[in-house]
Amino acid sequence: MARIELYDTTLRDGAQREGISFSVLDKLHIAQKLDEFGFDYIEGGWPGANPKDNEFFQRAAGLGFKKARLVAFGSTRKAGVAVESDANIKALVESGAPVITLVGKSSAPQVEKVLATSLDENIGMVADSIRYLKSLGRTVFLDAEHFFDGFKADREYSLKVLKEAAEAGADCLVLCDTNGGSLPDEVAEAVKTVVAAIEVPVGIHAHNDAELAVANSLAAVKAGATQVQGTINGYGERCGNANLCSIVPALKLKMGIDVIGDLELTRLADLSHFISEVANLSPDPFLPYVGHSAFTHKAGLHVSGLSRWVFAYQHIDPASVGNKPRTLVSELAGRTNIIQRAQEIGVNLSPKSHESQELLERVKKLESMGFQYENAEASFDLLVHRANPGYVPPFHLVDFMVIVEKRRRPPIVACEEEEMMSEAVVKVRVGGEIMHTAAEGSGPVNALDAAMRKALLPSYPALDTVKLTDFKVRILEESTGTESLVRVLIESTDGTDEWHTVGASANLIEASWLALVDSLEYFLIKK
Amino acid sequence: MARIELYDTTLRDGAQREGISFSVLDKLHIAQKLDEFGFDYIEGGWPGANPKDNEFFQRAAGLGFKKARLVAFGSTRKAGVAVESDANIKALVESGAPVITLVGKSSAPQVEKVLATSLDENIGMVADSIRYLKSLGRTVFLDAEHFFDGFKADREYSLKVLKEAAEAGADCLVLCDTNGGSLPDEVAEAVKTVVAAIEVPVGIHAHNDAELAVANSLAAVKAGATQVQGTINGYGERCGNANLCSIVPALKLKMGIDVIGDLELTRLADLSHFISEVANLSPDPFLPYVGHSAFTHKAGLHVSGLSRWVFAYQHIDPASVGNKPRTLVSELAGRTNIIQRAQEIGVNLSPKSHESQELLERVKKLESMGFQYENAEASFDLLVHRANPGYVPPFHLVDFMVIVEKRRRPPIVACEEEEMMSEAVVKVRVGGEIMHTAAEGSGPVNALDAAMRKALLPSYPALDTVKLTDFKVRILEESTGTESLVRVLIESTDGTDEWHTVGASANLIEASWLALVDSLEYFLIKK
Repeated sequence: MARIELYDTTLRDGAQREGISFSVLDKLHIAQKLDEFGFDYIEGGWPGANPKDNEFFQRAAGLGFKKARLVAFGSTRKAGVAVESDANIKALVESGAPVITLVGKSSAPQVEKVLATSLDENIGMVADSIRYLKSLGRTVFLDAEHFFDGFKADREYSLKVLKEAAEAGADCLVLCDTNGGSLPDEVAEAVKTVVAAIEVPVGIHAHNDAELAVANSLAAVKAGATQVQGTINGYGERCGNANLCSIVPALKLKMGIDVIGDLELTRLADLSHFISEVANLSPDPFLPYVGHSAFTHKAGLHVSGLSRWVFAYQHIDPASVGNKPRTLVSELAGRTNIIQRAQEIGVNLSPKSHESQELLERVKKLESMGFQYENAEASFDLLVHRANPGYVPPFHLVDFMVIVEKRRRPPIVACEEEEMMSEAVVKVRVGGEIMHTAAEGSGPVNALDAAMRKALLPSYPALDTVKLTDFKVRILEESTGTESLVRVLIESTDGTDEWHTVGASANLIEASWLALVDSLEYFLIKK
Repeated sequence: MARIELYDTTLRDGAQREGISFSVLDKLHIAQKLDEFGFDYIEGGWPGANPKDNEFFQRAAGLGFKKARLVAFGSTRKAGVAVESDANIKALVESGAPVITLVGKSSAPQVEKVLATSLDENIGMVADSIRYLKSLGRTVFLDAEHFFDGFKADREYSLKVLKEAAEAGADCLVLCDTNGGSLPDEVAEAVKTVVAAIEVPVGIHAHNDAELAVANSLAAVKAGATQVQGTINGYGERCGNANLCSIVPALKLKMGIDVIGDLELTRLADLSHFISEVANLSPDPFLPYVGHSAFTHKAGLHVSGLSRWVFAYQHIDPASVGNKPRTLVSELAGRTNIIQRAQEIGVNLSPKSHESQELLERVKKLESMGFQYENAEASFDLLVHRANPGYVPPFHLVDFMVIVEKRRRPPIVACEEEEMMSEAVVKVRVGGEIMHTAAEGSGPVNALDAAMRKALLPSYPALDTVKLTDFKVRILEESTGTESLVRVLIESTDGTDEWHTVGASANLIEASWLALVDSLEYFLIKK
């Protein structure tokens, strides 16, 4: 059996999900993580469609993937335009991506009703574009849009598009269930027909509009497809794309196809959570394999059954995908992890010591209050230092106050003038001295930051190099609206290193304040 | 082909989902709604397992279903106990339910490792219990637990359990993928084997642990199963049960099996929302067929395609399941989207008019300032209304102030005491009157919300029903840290409808304030 290749399109098709908007830096982080996981292809975006994607491709070239090949996505040339002068094709070439996926229509009714061009011109658009990009030495995949619906409506035409694409040099014919409504048997039959008729490798790109995207992808592989496209967590337009977090373990653990290493597979749950974190979406606890509830047992019958046999109510070993059963009492990292991390930053804790016990208790308590140290090592390191009785913090907070005000001035000009004012007052003890400072800012946290710097800079001029580069806010509990628990993650840099800190509170400002203060303190003790 | 029967277990297996806890009254309402929709069987609970379920069966007898038959669920007799004196069997009988589903093990390793009894005794438990309940005139279904895993491990034994159940008089053999890990081909092969070997009708009960529950259910029907069990929205333990909201339309619209009337099918989306409402869970917008986003179009390419052909990017007519297409208003799309959305809320804009031009400019400007309307239709609708010169807003904001303060009290006890205080003052003009109010809250936005309500409630008591159910904060521009642009999305509900509003600003508090005020204004003009 041919090797099955995994193709991730979280950064392009996944980003079509309502509510997702990745920055260029988000995309770069995600691409790196996807490569580490072991995907064969990572589709980065649609060059020419927006400036963000152009910038991504420029910067992604420097990432140095260990395994994956970077893919740029775009359409075939426009009807009636020469391929060399088509703006979209130019943007694809300029992206520098070694692999290009071209979307072209493979359904006769779509060509006639939506593209509003002739069936022959559509084939010309597909073939010309492939031939041109192949002549430039690129690997070219055809994303055969609406293939399965087209195959049902006019089988001859859909196959003809694929044959011409194959002749033009396409490296893979990716059959796309664009509207997401096909049934697994229909997919299997169509894939078999294509595999029998054409020599070029076949891929599958499924959407989840009938809740069948995973089944359709597996059916296509069984029928001979050798490339599977999908997204992490099934993110995508409408009801989403085929979910790679369910497809990868099914291929590997259930169908015995070695698409990924055992070790890499144990990072699946982590990958899923990482992507939802960057997308600023709550991880879906009910996701198969990777969800927090995927191996959670509520019924007493099931829990007692599990105590007798681990497979009594579990279809796989949760550890194989980096998940765990929720019968575990504590969800927190255990004592070993904490001691290990302390060692890494030069603090020796003996496992049985009073200090390490206290630190463990403190981490548990803070995590139950909404702190999370997985993405905020700097805050965790501070906890370790503070657990050391000899630790001398560079400053002590006394108190703070923030005022945010909106005043409507008298309308002296035609339009109403409004003024937003944010002001912060902080009191900090540095050495033996109390610094009492005030500052304005573009918002309350910015004002707090400015006031803190005023207080600390005289003693610590190096703080001048510290910049806060990202600020993420996450609401932890649903259904309580503005009273809900808030977690703030701050990313900082001094131009050389980058560090992350966390704060949590029912009060947005307090959570921000805690993360902000940790960032400054971490920098000062690291110096 | 035999008629396919639909069996709903939302009230029993669905209620195993983490976070669901139905009251007896909830269950009665749901049962009524399920009957109206047209299910053949409604499983109400597990009599004897808890007093709530006993009460439910007592009261459900009076519901007078128009079509459905009520089902009680329970286990076969215990090992070594006579069936007439088994407490669980007694409770089933006393429930008065005309149909009884008995769960019995049909997997040899499960019997030996988990039940810890002999293979023969297990068969005795199944057969005795069925025979006894049949002798009392009940319809009896066997829920053959772990059937598919058992079939893989020891095919002979699993088939033997079914054969003995059939001989004892079972009316349906429901093959259960208890651990939810089976693949569609495995399910199809096992069902075919059973259908060929045994005369009694076969059912399918699938779980979604491999994201294949819908596919497995459809595969079973194709292979000869005539009863499909599942839950509304796929609620259920771990990753959930087979989702009837996806299975019913697939059977009816895609496989041509007339399981339900056309009119009933148009109530599917409503049924889905009703159940999530009663379960007190946010409806999942990404659910196939019934989700708010299931027919939502974001990319300009797709929107313009749809304007040419309704099936360009939709697999079915949304109206057939009671859903509707939705257009996301975003930078990606153009004027067509905006005019279409305005039409959806009953405002007619001609594409070339001054108003539509101005509105487009305003949306563009606001989006460049960080507002995003694709997840905040309520704010967009307000923009449309405000573009109308005759619009009279229900209130006018004058100004506001927020103070957040942290004061460290003198350490009178061993640990340091800290106090966070959030207070808001707002000035609002309602009709001719200026309302000047103040309130405290758990954080600055909560305090603003409380102060706004104080100001508006005297004039608009209906606001009392409005709750903010979610609050999302997103930082828009990286590399500027705490000075960055912030977007706040607020989700609100009045118990019936749900709406989303947006605010954006460099000031976190102002962004929250804008989204909050839009939420209240939208509710008031909608009334």
